[in-house]
Amino acid sequence: MLPHEVMLQAQQELINWNGLGTSVMEISHRGKAFIAVAEQAEQDFRDLLNIPCNYTVLFMHGGGRGQFSTVPQNLSKSGDVSDHLVTGQWSISAEKEAQKFTTTNIVATAEPDENGLIHVPHQDSWSLSPGARYFQYCPNETVEGIEINWVPKIDNVPIVADMSSNILSKQINIDDYGVVYAGAQKNIGPSGLTLVIVRNDLLGKARNDTPAIFDYDLQAKHDSMYNTPPTFSWYLAGLVFKWLKQQGGVAAIEQRNIQKSKMLYDFIDNSSLYSNSIAIENRSKMNVTFQLQQAEALDPMFLADSEKSGLSALKGHRAVGGMRASIYNAMPLEGVKALVDFMKEFERTKG
Amino acid sequence: MLPHEVMLQAQQELINWNGLGTSVMEISHRGKAFIAVAEQAEQDFRDLLNIPCNYTVLFMHGGGRGQFSTVPQNLSKSGDVSDHLVTGQWSISAEKEAQKFTTTNIVATAEPDENGLIHVPHQDSWSLSPGARYFQYCPNETVEGIEINWVPKIDNVPIVADMSSNILSKQINIDDYGVVYAGAQKNIGPSGLTLVIVRNDLLGKARNDTPAIFDYDLQAKHDSMYNTPPTFSWYLAGLVFKWLKQQGGVAAIEQRNIQKSKMLYDFIDNSSLYSNSIAIENRSKMNVTFQLQQAEALDPMFLADSEKSGLSALKGHRAVGGMRASIYNAMPLEGVKALVDFMKEFERTKG
Repeated sequence: MLPHEVMLQAQQELINWNGLGTSVMEISHRGKAFIAVAEQAEQDFRDLLNIPCNYTVLFMHGGGRGQFSTVPQNLSKSGDVSDHLVTGQWSISAEKEAQKFTTTNIVATAEPDENGLIHVPHQDSWSLSPGARYFQYCPNETVEGIEINWVPKIDNVPIVADMSSNILSKQINIDDYGVVYAGAQKNIGPSGLTLVIVRNDLLGKARNDTPAIFDYDLQAKHDSMYNTPPTFSWYLAGLVFKWLKQQGGVAAIEQRNIQKSKMLYDFIDNSSLYSNSIAIENRSKMNVTFQLQQAEALDPMFLADSEKSGLSALKGHRAVGGMRASIYNAMPLEGVKALVDFMKEFERTKG
Repeated sequence: MLPHEVMLQAQQELINWNGLGTSVMEISHRGKAFIAVAEQAEQDFRDLLNIPCNYTVLFMHGGGRGQFSTVPQNLSKSGDVSDHLVTGQWSISAEKEAQKFTTTNIVATAEPDENGLIHVPHQDSWSLSPGARYFQYCPNETVEGIEINWVPKIDNVPIVADMSSNILSKQINIDDYGVVYAGAQKNIGPSGLTLVIVRNDLLGKARNDTPAIFDYDLQAKHDSMYNTPPTFSWYLAGLVFKWLKQQGGVAAIEQRNIQKSKMLYDFIDNSSLYSNSIAIENRSKMNVTFQLQQAEALDPMFLADSEKSGLSALKGHRAVGGMRASIYNAMPLEGVKALVDFMKEFERTKG
């Protein structure tokens, strides 16, 4: 979901952008007009996240999953060890892909406690590797609905965070990280674009067989234009960044996201039909997962009725079942209210 | 440049696609609605190029340059040899990138004859490697304006063709190739999407350390959705394929491309101000390069005047200088006529 205002502007400009009589996707990425779009988008992104000048921002191909190989290729050599915190589908996939390039070590996994609530273990219980080349985790797991609200600190080991699903949803301190990356399609723009924030001292260390288009240093030297970037997605991301600034920036959207998710979790916690199985401190503000009592009978009914009410895509990921409401930045509070109203009515009539 | 009719349709549908009240770029790539778009686009692409059923079509990330590493990763193992025909900037870049994975061998290079005309040497003069894992070339070099109108035949060696700049511009016989790939941004759609046509017996041979998103076999098994594909680009590519069918398909567009390029080359050949330095049989129908007499004095004037006349992007690539007119599928005959008229007038007044 993208902000409605952004889509309206994109539509208006689609065949005549900037008075050029053509679409932004038809102009050369090396021309002045597109370079201006690209630079403005980067500046707005930097402003939104307060990215310090010793970090490079890259606009890349390949999505979040592309970074699962790109990170080890850029940060490690054969024989190196990488540490991984595994909290769900995304972090386990990243760890599996890293095995192609490093000796991976899982420092800890998220597990249910005696009440069945899933917790992310705290750092003091982790098995960290001495001399790990980097530590990777996913601060928001979309499938399970797990979010981590603190940042690991490991001496001399860069922290790599896959923020594909919660970038720009809350304030972060970039200095805490070595690399932050995000596929664009959750909070930024259309799929096909990946944002990478990399600390400059980590550039120039790629394996010799890293694909050129995925070499952070090479792309940094070419302002992300070593190959033709996904120009239309870059432009749209720029519109989203402007929109976010107009909303009051990340601090403001964070408050809205807290409000949205609190409304939904409060309702679930006070309901006897719905429940959530994630420990309170690890509940995601982007992906709210919930289960229905008598799921086998009620799930199909819930999905059919919600679809009829114009609430789509509530089915949980097949790996975990149940339900999931994804309430990214572009989802207005009214959307969450409508969902709660529907859930309330469903509980009253069929629960 | 994209067909105007396609851009109008994309604009009309941008915020309310298929009556869903949302954009095609906002819907899930795993939902029925997008799957239908994806399948129709593939079918139309198959129809346009008569792709036999023993070939798989993939919609990938990474552009044409991404395939420079993806091809050797999928078709060869360490120690294997790959053969390369080098005819310009794109084929030399592909050969350089392949060096990360194979022992490369350049079978021949395009060179100027005694009159300064650049020729692509014929296959009988090539130094082919016995046991090469594949042979790679670029049938249309955009920088130099060189096109090859025949397909090499090498016993038991798959031919890999980088058709980023001439796919769908003319009829081809897919059976001649092991792999055909193309970045989308010339004849297909917006940048960020790559089309790959791969013969099925070449699937499943990737190196173990191939990035998962670039593993042909894995993507084939997931219908190009192992990771989130560039959905909006895929949709737009589908619109371009429909448009191309309405134009009469590839046979019809090929005739138009012949007509367009002939008009321009005929004018250049009959002019005393302009010249082209490519052997006639190797002249590109997509990228017409030309030089002006007294270039140092006239080039800046030609570029400034053409810009004023609404003819943009005529400056040749910095690697070769001079001028270049890119006349891809979406460029109408009228656009070429306007260029010839401008060149004629420039010659009359300033030549």
